[in-house]
Amino acid sequence: MLIGKAFRLGGRVRSGVIKPLACLFTAPSNMAKSKFEYVRNFETDDTCLRNCYIVVRLDGRNFHKFAEQHEFTKPNDNRALGLMSRSARSVMEELEDIVIAYGQSDEFSFVFKRTSTWFKRRASKLMTHVASQFSSSYVFYWKEFFGEQPLLYPPGFDGRVVLYPSNHNLRDYLSWRQADCHINNLYNTVFWTLVQKGGLTTAQAEDRLKGTLAADKNEILFSEFDINYNTEPALHRKGTTLIWEKRDETVLKRMKLPNEEEKDVAVTRSRRRVQAHHCDIIGEQFWEDHPDVLEDDNC
Amino acid sequence: MLIGKAFRLGGRVRSGVIKPLACLFTAPSNMAKSKFEYVRNFETDDTCLRNCYIVVRLDGRNFHKFAEQHEFTKPNDNRALGLMSRSARSVMEELEDIVIAYGQSDEFSFVFKRTSTWFKRRASKLMTHVASQFSSSYVFYWKEFFGEQPLLYPPGFDGRVVLYPSNHNLRDYLSWRQADCHINNLYNTVFWTLVQKGGLTTAQAEDRLKGTLAADKNEILFSEFDINYNTEPALHRKGTTLIWEKRDETVLKRMKLPNEEEKDVAVTRSRRRVQAHHCDIIGEQFWEDHPDVLEDDNC
Amino acid sequence: MLIGKAFRLGGRVRSGVIKPLACLFTAPSNMAKSKFEYVRNFETDDTCLRNCYIVVRLDGRNFHKFAEQHEFTKPNDNRALGLMSRSARSVMEELEDIVIAYGQSDEFSFVFKRTSTWFKRRASKLMTHVASQFSSSYVFYWKEFFGEQPLLYPPGFDGRVVLYPSNHNLRDYLSWRQADCHINNLYNTVFWTLVQKGGLTTAQAEDRLKGTLAADKNEILFSEFDINYNTEPALHRKGTTLIWEKRDETVLKRMKLPNEEEKDVAVTRSRRRVQAHHCDIIGEQFWEDHPDVLEDDNC
Amino acid sequence: MLIGKAFRLGGRVRSGVIKPLACLFTAPSNMAKSKFEYVRNFETDDTCLRNCYIVVRLDGRNFHKFAEQHEFTKPNDNRALGLMSRSARSVMEELEDIVIAYGQSDEFSFVFKRTSTWFKRRASKLMTHVASQFSSSYVFYWKEFFGEQPLLYPPGFDGRVVLYPSNHNLRDYLSWRQADCHINNLYNTVFWTLVQKGGLTTAQAEDRLKGTLAADKNEILFSEFDINYNTEPALHRKGTTLIWEKRDETVLKRMKLPNEEEKDVAVTRSRRRVQAHHCDIIGEQFWEDHPDVLEDDNC
Repeated sequence: MLIGKAFRLGGRVRSGVIKPLACLFTAPSNMAKSKFEYVRNFETDDTCLRNCYIVVRLDGRNFHKFAEQHEFTKPNDNRALGLMSRSARSVMEELEDIVIAYGQSDEFSFVFKRTSTWFKRRASKLMTHVASQFSSSYVFYWKEFFGEQPLLYPPGFDGRVVLYPSNHNLRDYLSWRQADCHINNLYNTVFWTLVQKGGLTTAQAEDRLKGTLAADKNEILFSEFDINYNTEPALHRKGTTLIWEKRDETVLKRMKLPNEEEKDVAVTRSRRRVQAHHCDIIGEQFWEDHPDVLEDDNC
Repeated sequence: MLIGKAFRLGGRVRSGVIKPLACLFTAPSNMAKSKFEYVRNFETDDTCLRNCYIVVRLDGRNFHKFAEQHEFTKPNDNRALGLMSRSARSVMEELEDIVIAYGQSDEFSFVFKRTSTWFKRRASKLMTHVASQFSSSYVFYWKEFFGEQPLLYPPGFDGRVVLYPSNHNLRDYLSWRQADCHINNLYNTVFWTLVQKGGLTTAQAEDRLKGTLAADKNEILFSEFDINYNTEPALHRKGTTLIWEKRDETVLKRMKLPNEEEKDVAVTRSRRRVQAHHCDIIGEQFWEDHPDVLEDDNC
Repeated sequence: MLIGKAFRLGGRVRSGVIKPLACLFTAPSNMAKSKFEYVRNFETDDTCLRNCYIVVRLDGRNFHKFAEQHEFTKPNDNRALGLMSRSARSVMEELEDIVIAYGQSDEFSFVFKRTSTWFKRRASKLMTHVASQFSSSYVFYWKEFFGEQPLLYPPGFDGRVVLYPSNHNLRDYLSWRQADCHINNLYNTVFWTLVQKGGLTTAQAEDRLKGTLAADKNEILFSEFDINYNTEPALHRKGTTLIWEKRDETVLKRMKLPNEEEKDVAVTRSRRRVQAHHCDIIGEQFWEDHPDVLEDDNC
Repeated sequence: MLIGKAFRLGGRVRSGVIKPLACLFTAPSNMAKSKFEYVRNFETDDTCLRNCYIVVRLDGRNFHKFAEQHEFTKPNDNRALGLMSRSARSVMEELEDIVIAYGQSDEFSFVFKRTSTWFKRRASKLMTHVASQFSSSYVFYWKEFFGEQPLLYPPGFDGRVVLYPSNHNLRDYLSWRQADCHINNLYNTVFWTLVQKGGLTTAQAEDRLKGTLAADKNEILFSEFDINYNTEPALHRKGTTLIWEKRDETVLKRMKLPNEEEKDVAVTRSRRRVQAHHCDIIGEQFWEDHPDVLEDDNC
């Protein structure tokens, strides 16, 4: 860690000038940094195509094992889901060009606006920064969600970048992830109900569900356990969607009057905040309610 | 967080079969995941060229400010340097195909062996996993190095991937980073000596150093402050090089003898461990001492 | 040139089985192709992002010299322009997914529809095939345009691929090329008029035009040479736009009647043909007249 | 075709200044090229990794059909093979950084030296230029090899770029192509011998060869047709390797002597020329004989 006002200078090292004393300290000639600098040219440009949405998706590494070791409740652990969303919010607050993020299970997708110029649209910078900020936040905020239960080791997430040229494609991407959430959550809800309430072994539950369709699973829940899947928590059925929302905030501000008196004045400011939603994002409603999330295709 | 024995199934949702009861729960037809799955084809292949070293370099984001806020000592903070190395070791232990890592200041480079097939050599997976593991480790191990001094917010690191086709190129890359360490550390050492011991303001120190060569800086340290730069800590002058080393470890193991008795037997095993070095890696010596780090060019 | 019904087989060569006679001919073991096939894995995937227009632009290599050596007339040579368009048509007829092509001077741009799957959207295949077909056509059709004037050497064109995610971007690309055509042609028209009709040397003409705006150039043409630039040939001012157009074609076809007589019957078929236009493509008119060229953004 | 001393200027068009006369000609404001120039930023960088061999391989498009239509002799047509090599030589003479080229059948591979900076190592430029120059040469030189037999249509070739980081990898690439030549030529030689001399139908010949190994094929040729495959033309068995070779050339040059007399003087110069070889390039011999073709790995 080099700390100082001026650092990262392209310093110059010269070995030719030999003064009586200085020669003792002269850097070896192979310290001449310029000789090695050609290696910079091996870096390749990975700029993302302009006018496309840039999606960074993170996935937990070995989270099945991580969940077991940290005794996550099944089929959904609200602490873990909360920590995922908290970490995602931390990413959005760092990278303001993210217009929407969607998460479920151990994954989270971040969508940069199509005109973003963050990091000059360099894919490697965007995805590593998202992965890094998310991961350090996950550990940093662990306590807020798990209290005194210790985090046993630092978890890992891997990421990727995908580009989408049109609003239609981007919405289909988000729909794909939410449909995935639905399918997995329905399965897991029935599976663990069969085990936890129905007394089946996991093998029996797996067997029972083999070949069943969505309707069959709904029916098992309803007729055998009196559970209406549609009233299960939206957080579990729909995942978490984060967007920026403008809020008027009114604060009292002490101001000096012309006559030197002081007075509390109510000041209203519009502030952008990250807001979480647990609703359907496949249909039109959500997008009609939030018309500012996506930019026009015709740009 | 979907937890269960069987998850991430490619579940099937069908809405055509309408049974009296089940229809209540039938997933909306737009839940049909298959309709959206085409978006997968927008992912691009970023496989790294075979038979090249893959270097992932991480850099701290806004670490100048981070250092100020966490009151790092100047010009080098050993706690911070120790935490960087600890986090790097955590990365190496997770990703065993990393054959060497080199760090200085707020950066760390990780070199995957040229024949590595980790993550099918996909650049995005390699760099995000390194960035993620490093970042979560940085927060996780903070306390080991900073004790009760709190971490104020989750830090970020960004990364990049660079490929090097030959041993010569790779060594020049590492030399480049170590030469950078040398130049910065020499500058910062003199700068802060002038300020802390010489009583100069930072502006005066900056002015004093303008245009000076390495030899001049060495001379200032020696003649004015009686400091021989070459005896400054190697950790600061040379940075940190991490490699795998085999160690014979002998442990006592309780074993059953044929006569049913038990006995402690000394068992010696060879174990690979990450070892830190603070030495020159520009010259030949280090590479002659550790011939197994690099693979032959002729492969 | 290996000609045969079955070629490009993945043949098997085995050297282990030694029969008395055959051993004479046994291929050397290093002929075992499988040993070398790993080199295939060094190929990288260069699939173009889906749902984007793929533009391949070709540029003549050293065409200034080529024009001099083949005594092209100045400022425009209609034979050369005709040959460019003929070669472009040859490319379009080979690659039917090209929806529009635009050419001027020694360059031609080819636009593949955004949903094209030609060559699996592999950039290298698309651009080399376009460059190859164009170049062989240029030599093949030379005589049609230059008659007995010999082609002195085989000319070269280089190419590139650019992706455009929206109709708006694509139209701006084409507008950019046509604006380039306009600017160059106006300049060259005035320049060569000053030289050929005004008796200036090329140096004098260059000097005269230094710093002039479009309006100034128009005025020189009009007031000094009685030339209205707007009535100059559209081919020169607007370049050449090639699109597919459906035409009803009526041909007489000899058909057998039920009573065994034969009769000529007029048969009308719709046929797609490449059609050239020399009109403005920056404004709306062209696109309103040809609504089928571009696909909808919202796909 | 815009011909002139000064063209491709970034001309300026301004519509604001309205003079009485000039306004007639003022370019429409949408001719302002600068408004569209942003589309340039959609181009992506495709620079080839430094210090790697760059291989461009061309393949004939639909050459099976092309061969039928132009009545190529089977299994090998020496005219067609000669034309391929002539075109490849034309490419090498245009692009001097190609150190070796290897061709067989309807394919040709061109290897740029690892330190080449042609076209700034941009893959698209390199491959399109090779494809273009090869294709125009193929048509241009057709007559030299096929005489009065007409070329029926302009042929197409597609190309690709592959990088090889080491000499070992590059030699394996070339070995792979020559092993492919061997396997195909052996098959085709036997196949067409069975048909042309053995009186089999093509179906019968195909059947006869099903499952045979190299040794079996050699034996069929030898025992049934008295043909020793190893004495078949090397051009067919080994393909064509093109490299640069230095030759001393002595020419007579008429020179003026001091006494004003003229005299023919023999002047010897070293000249680089493309030389064709039809020999094994899998073994060591060729590379020992031509040590200058490859650069050292250790660079």
